[in-house]
Amino acid sequence: MAILRWGMVGGGEGAFIGDVHRMAARLDGGYQLVAGCFSSSPEKTNLSAKALGVEVDRAYSDFNTMAEVESQREDGIQVVSIVTPNFLHYDNVKAFLDRRIAVICEKPLTVSLLQAQELQTLAKKQNTFLAVTYNYVENPMVKVARELVKKGELGELLMVDAYYLQDWLALDIESTGQKQAAWRTDPAKTGRAGCLGDIGIHAYNLLSYLIGYSASRVNASLTSFVAGRRVDDHADIQLGYKDNILQGRILASQVMTGHENDLGFRLTGRKATLEWRQETPNELWFKPLGAPAQRMTRNGAGYPESLNAVCYVPAGHPEGYLEAFANVYQNIRMALLEKELSYYPNIDQAVKDMEFVEACLQSNDQGH
Amino acid sequence: MAILRWGMVGGGEGAFIGDVHRMAARLDGGYQLVAGCFSSSPEKTNLSAKALGVEVDRAYSDFNTMAEVESQREDGIQVVSIVTPNFLHYDNVKAFLDRRIAVICEKPLTVSLLQAQELQTLAKKQNTFLAVTYNYVENPMVKVARELVKKGELGELLMVDAYYLQDWLALDIESTGQKQAAWRTDPAKTGRAGCLGDIGIHAYNLLSYLIGYSASRVNASLTSFVAGRRVDDHADIQLGYKDNILQGRILASQVMTGHENDLGFRLTGRKATLEWRQETPNELWFKPLGAPAQRMTRNGAGYPESLNAVCYVPAGHPEGYLEAFANVYQNIRMALLEKELSYYPNIDQAVKDMEFVEACLQSNDQGH
Amino acid sequence: MAILRWGMVGGGEGAFIGDVHRMAARLDGGYQLVAGCFSSSPEKTNLSAKALGVEVDRAYSDFNTMAEVESQREDGIQVVSIVTPNFLHYDNVKAFLDRRIAVICEKPLTVSLLQAQELQTLAKKQNTFLAVTYNYVENPMVKVARELVKKGELGELLMVDAYYLQDWLALDIESTGQKQAAWRTDPAKTGRAGCLGDIGIHAYNLLSYLIGYSASRVNASLTSFVAGRRVDDHADIQLGYKDNILQGRILASQVMTGHENDLGFRLTGRKATLEWRQETPNELWFKPLGAPAQRMTRNGAGYPESLNAVCYVPAGHPEGYLEAFANVYQNIRMALLEKELSYYPNIDQAVKDMEFVEACLQSNDQGH
Amino acid sequence: MAILRWGMVGGGEGAFIGDVHRMAARLDGGYQLVAGCFSSSPEKTNLSAKALGVEVDRAYSDFNTMAEVESQREDGIQVVSIVTPNFLHYDNVKAFLDRRIAVICEKPLTVSLLQAQELQTLAKKQNTFLAVTYNYVENPMVKVARELVKKGELGELLMVDAYYLQDWLALDIESTGQKQAAWRTDPAKTGRAGCLGDIGIHAYNLLSYLIGYSASRVNASLTSFVAGRRVDDHADIQLGYKDNILQGRILASQVMTGHENDLGFRLTGRKATLEWRQETPNELWFKPLGAPAQRMTRNGAGYPESLNAVCYVPAGHPEGYLEAFANVYQNIRMALLEKELSYYPNIDQAVKDMEFVEACLQSNDQGH
Repeated sequence: MAILRWGMVGGGEGAFIGDVHRMAARLDGGYQLVAGCFSSSPEKTNLSAKALGVEVDRAYSDFNTMAEVESQREDGIQVVSIVTPNFLHYDNVKAFLDRRIAVICEKPLTVSLLQAQELQTLAKKQNTFLAVTYNYVENPMVKVARELVKKGELGELLMVDAYYLQDWLALDIESTGQKQAAWRTDPAKTGRAGCLGDIGIHAYNLLSYLIGYSASRVNASLTSFVAGRRVDDHADIQLGYKDNILQGRILASQVMTGHENDLGFRLTGRKATLEWRQETPNELWFKPLGAPAQRMTRNGAGYPESLNAVCYVPAGHPEGYLEAFANVYQNIRMALLEKELSYYPNIDQAVKDMEFVEACLQSNDQGH
Repeated sequence: MAILRWGMVGGGEGAFIGDVHRMAARLDGGYQLVAGCFSSSPEKTNLSAKALGVEVDRAYSDFNTMAEVESQREDGIQVVSIVTPNFLHYDNVKAFLDRRIAVICEKPLTVSLLQAQELQTLAKKQNTFLAVTYNYVENPMVKVARELVKKGELGELLMVDAYYLQDWLALDIESTGQKQAAWRTDPAKTGRAGCLGDIGIHAYNLLSYLIGYSASRVNASLTSFVAGRRVDDHADIQLGYKDNILQGRILASQVMTGHENDLGFRLTGRKATLEWRQETPNELWFKPLGAPAQRMTRNGAGYPESLNAVCYVPAGHPEGYLEAFANVYQNIRMALLEKELSYYPNIDQAVKDMEFVEACLQSNDQGH
Repeated sequence: MAILRWGMVGGGEGAFIGDVHRMAARLDGGYQLVAGCFSSSPEKTNLSAKALGVEVDRAYSDFNTMAEVESQREDGIQVVSIVTPNFLHYDNVKAFLDRRIAVICEKPLTVSLLQAQELQTLAKKQNTFLAVTYNYVENPMVKVARELVKKGELGELLMVDAYYLQDWLALDIESTGQKQAAWRTDPAKTGRAGCLGDIGIHAYNLLSYLIGYSASRVNASLTSFVAGRRVDDHADIQLGYKDNILQGRILASQVMTGHENDLGFRLTGRKATLEWRQETPNELWFKPLGAPAQRMTRNGAGYPESLNAVCYVPAGHPEGYLEAFANVYQNIRMALLEKELSYYPNIDQAVKDMEFVEACLQSNDQGH
Repeated sequence: MAILRWGMVGGGEGAFIGDVHRMAARLDGGYQLVAGCFSSSPEKTNLSAKALGVEVDRAYSDFNTMAEVESQREDGIQVVSIVTPNFLHYDNVKAFLDRRIAVICEKPLTVSLLQAQELQTLAKKQNTFLAVTYNYVENPMVKVARELVKKGELGELLMVDAYYLQDWLALDIESTGQKQAAWRTDPAKTGRAGCLGDIGIHAYNLLSYLIGYSASRVNASLTSFVAGRRVDDHADIQLGYKDNILQGRILASQVMTGHENDLGFRLTGRKATLEWRQETPNELWFKPLGAPAQRMTRNGAGYPESLNAVCYVPAGHPEGYLEAFANVYQNIRMALLEKELSYYPNIDQAVKDMEFVEACLQSNDQGH
């Protein structure tokens, strides 16, 4: 197996998502981390590099230098992952696209639609790969769901629902110095959209992936339930689709007490309903009209062979968050090695997701 | 135990809800059915009377005669149940209130708010008991939930959700002569509100019961997904409350494939979330912030003694739909015997529920 | 509907199971309680009679007089229910069989196999109906399971498991004067078998009902986990069947902390497994080899029409313990009115169940 | 982080468990695969080496040579994993212990107790680390359960149950050439114990881990349900413990239709019951006497900080089989780097597990 030379911007010691990207890449087995600019502090970058086995001369104190130097090395990185806070994504991504180095960027792509569109244009101009890591769509049973929709097993779709409920921001922990909470509730770092851009966007992307198209109207109500919070922590959104039949809804919240990471969907068509929850990702419920509900399982009876590549272990051996994330890295690796610039969710979808965020913000501003 | 002399209007052979009322009353044990006008057809009424053990001279061919004659008999009925299609409720109820006979009416009380208000006024003028049978609030674990809300265990409420999902109208069965479907989708018999008035009203009443007050704003989207259907079969409603903090939502549908009678709620407060589903009514989930979720059970550990009267059997011996319905009859019996005219949900709540229906229809008309 | 004139022995105020029989009979609607000997205390019997609407002259101070007098009245009872503690069953049943009055007896039929066999002989000699109330087999989804076994949907059976787990006797509550606990742990009143005879017998009866035949070997381990307890409170039993292929197991316990009334079964055949739990009685899991598991529901899609009579309300309207118990009364009523003496579980099965109890006691005595 | 130089015997292309070990080691991140004897066929070993990035000169055609050569290299492997079929374990392990190279061996350690004891003696004589990979005990919620038992939260233990149910051998697939099935049902390769040694041993090890000691008596019934099968495919085992109070049971089966990899346990004490299932590994049920059941979650509210090291991602981000397996590699790495030869489950426990297997075979031979 060819191993990709891989770099990272952000993700120093103690970072949550940087660690996830590294575990996912290791589980995939096709990436070797050889360069990085892990922190805005050079000392921290050096410490992280050492801990991660990155040579000291490839531990960069700024990402522009990293992009420049790596693009010139014969053994320079083939792809870089951007795992910094949202407001840095635009500059980070641009630096590497400018040097035609393939980019994997955390969601949301940017803090504004305009920035996202510029990166889209740039990626096309440079003919360089740019992917955004929507990891949840890489769960095998989500893919089974998409297949069932495509094959018409649900019949005409009537209602699609997605939710993403957490409670880690139920209290004002940003004031207590909790680092993750601090930047994610600071509009200067996270963008204007709080919960909406952090997790609502996952729910929207998931629905788009499942049904194969985007909404044409949104009616969004954004709330900050915690006093003093500067971004929304609760988003309730109605979706309309072009055909005027399908109705959609997204509920995303970070103040929903008793919920850990409760992402899920329900797709209802004239013939059947499908339900899935991320916290029990190895099962998918198929509930047809006029027949008993079925519990379908990952790699279990009836699981399609065409989706074997996204499974690591047999049925009954539960997979979870990291395996889905490893599929992101697997798919990107396949796309890069096969010189295909297509990938789902690709830059075009990522821009559509930013259009959704922007439309929600506008809808909410207008008092919806 | 004193046994109430009881009459019924509607509920002839083969009627679903009439049978339910009779089973509930039998389970309670405090009612004896002694008079009835079970059908618009005198023959059918006589047949039903015979089958139900009602004396032939108290099987009436019209409800006005029944009200008149029974009110004059020394051993006349003390209370009557109205289980006819919605459009008949108004005349039925009025006939008995006029003679000061206590009335138990199926929901919705009437087909319009105006009618409901008139009955409210009449009941007060006549000083006569009038109850509407919202049976789901009589589930013991719903009552436990209300206690927990009252005691502040959830903290300030942020979001309340109720849903009532069925799929029995997913196809156009009204055209095939299915009797229940026929009248329930005929605006002349069911009123302007279809799914909204049939089951959405249950969800709304449930929320009002749980939190103790009504919504002050609705934003309703009513849909008829089945072609040719003359009333809504799907209702998606946002609720606003006076304090401008609490947000609510109701989803009611009769075309939600794979759902049988899926009524449930989720109440989220700053301290905890409560969840309950009618299809597994003996458990209630209490999900506090910062502690493991608890599965509370009917009559189980921690169940309040004050609610013992609404339980029939010990913990682990499941109760269901009929036991909750029997609680309706138990509570009404207690109210009647103790000469209390109060009862929940009483006429005032029933009028508020009709205000909700009317407000939803208006909101939908205005394109919300 | 013809109403049976019905009597009861035992079941005075505050009795658990007597109340259950009365609620079940009321729900069925085909029984009128007209006579009783509710307690060994004449005063209590009179109080109960008054509360239950039984005429004072048919409130008997002893059951022999009751049997004698009722058998002579033109309007005497047609059937009697015996709901006394186990040790009284034999004399109670005999008194009524002697007068050719049909008998419904709580399980276990008697405190010894010998007594059971004598009643079996007597019932046949008198050509009089004698039923034992194994209520759990009357759950609709248990009946669906039996149909699936019969139709061969499981293939050859390999393993059948039943469990009945409670925790109400986890502490020595018999010493504190808890009435139910006191007699149920007193060998003079409950018989030699404690937990085994109280709930293990239900599990065994359930398995026999499901597969259609009895075990031919038992290997039983009976334990009294609570110090000083005079009967078993935990029974672990291996079952062997004639064909030497099928293996069975029963676990019954009244000290299984965290369990309320957790009766259930798993039947495994070469083609599929079936699972059911009494605490969620409206669903049955069918788990075939090579296809997704299915959740079948009472009165739901695929529910056989032939079993409609044992359902009271539509799918999604949960039924529970009392509805199953009402089916016992419904079935007995049908059997009596149609002059059929057959009924499941009938006297022959009840004797087989006592053979099982006796065999378990012997196996345990021999140190198995 | 120091990276261990690591070798592997067995686990060539297409092997299930070899792949699992590699994924687990990658996820841990502390192992670099540098040598291997992946197959009995030198060509296949070379192909695997190439695919796995192992230098050609360290792809060995036999394991003895590998042990010899690697033990002499300055950069020789520090630890080797044995993932061959059971009958080869003894020779494989011995070869590396003889050269004082630390060994990680798949379960069961050997095909006989005698062999296991010899390896135990050898490991001690050589003062060399030898671990057996019981991966399931490395699930975080299993560890939480062990802590709760230790702290006395269950009270005195009364009954412990473990089960491991699969259906992949429900049909005679060994005759069709399915490779995994072929060797696992061949006594010459798998040993005398089939299902018992393959998965029953996991269930036993899990119970021993949870309660902290081994059984002192077994009563085993081993069955081959599939005609012609040469080893057991179903094992039903009663366990006795020294104190004569605690009772145990293990049910292991590979013909239990409708079950994928259904490993789980229930521990019942006088104060509470704990339940866990491997297929939903992120939750643990704590069911106390006299209080509502609690659903505890991995890394969720109340999860002990002392167990953070065995979690990879936050609560609500499901972990599964591979994460638990990675914990095996993490723990071994810690033990090796800290020069501790202790590790759970270590060689002493592995020998006890083989004693259990041997005792079960004897019990079954004696017709138990």
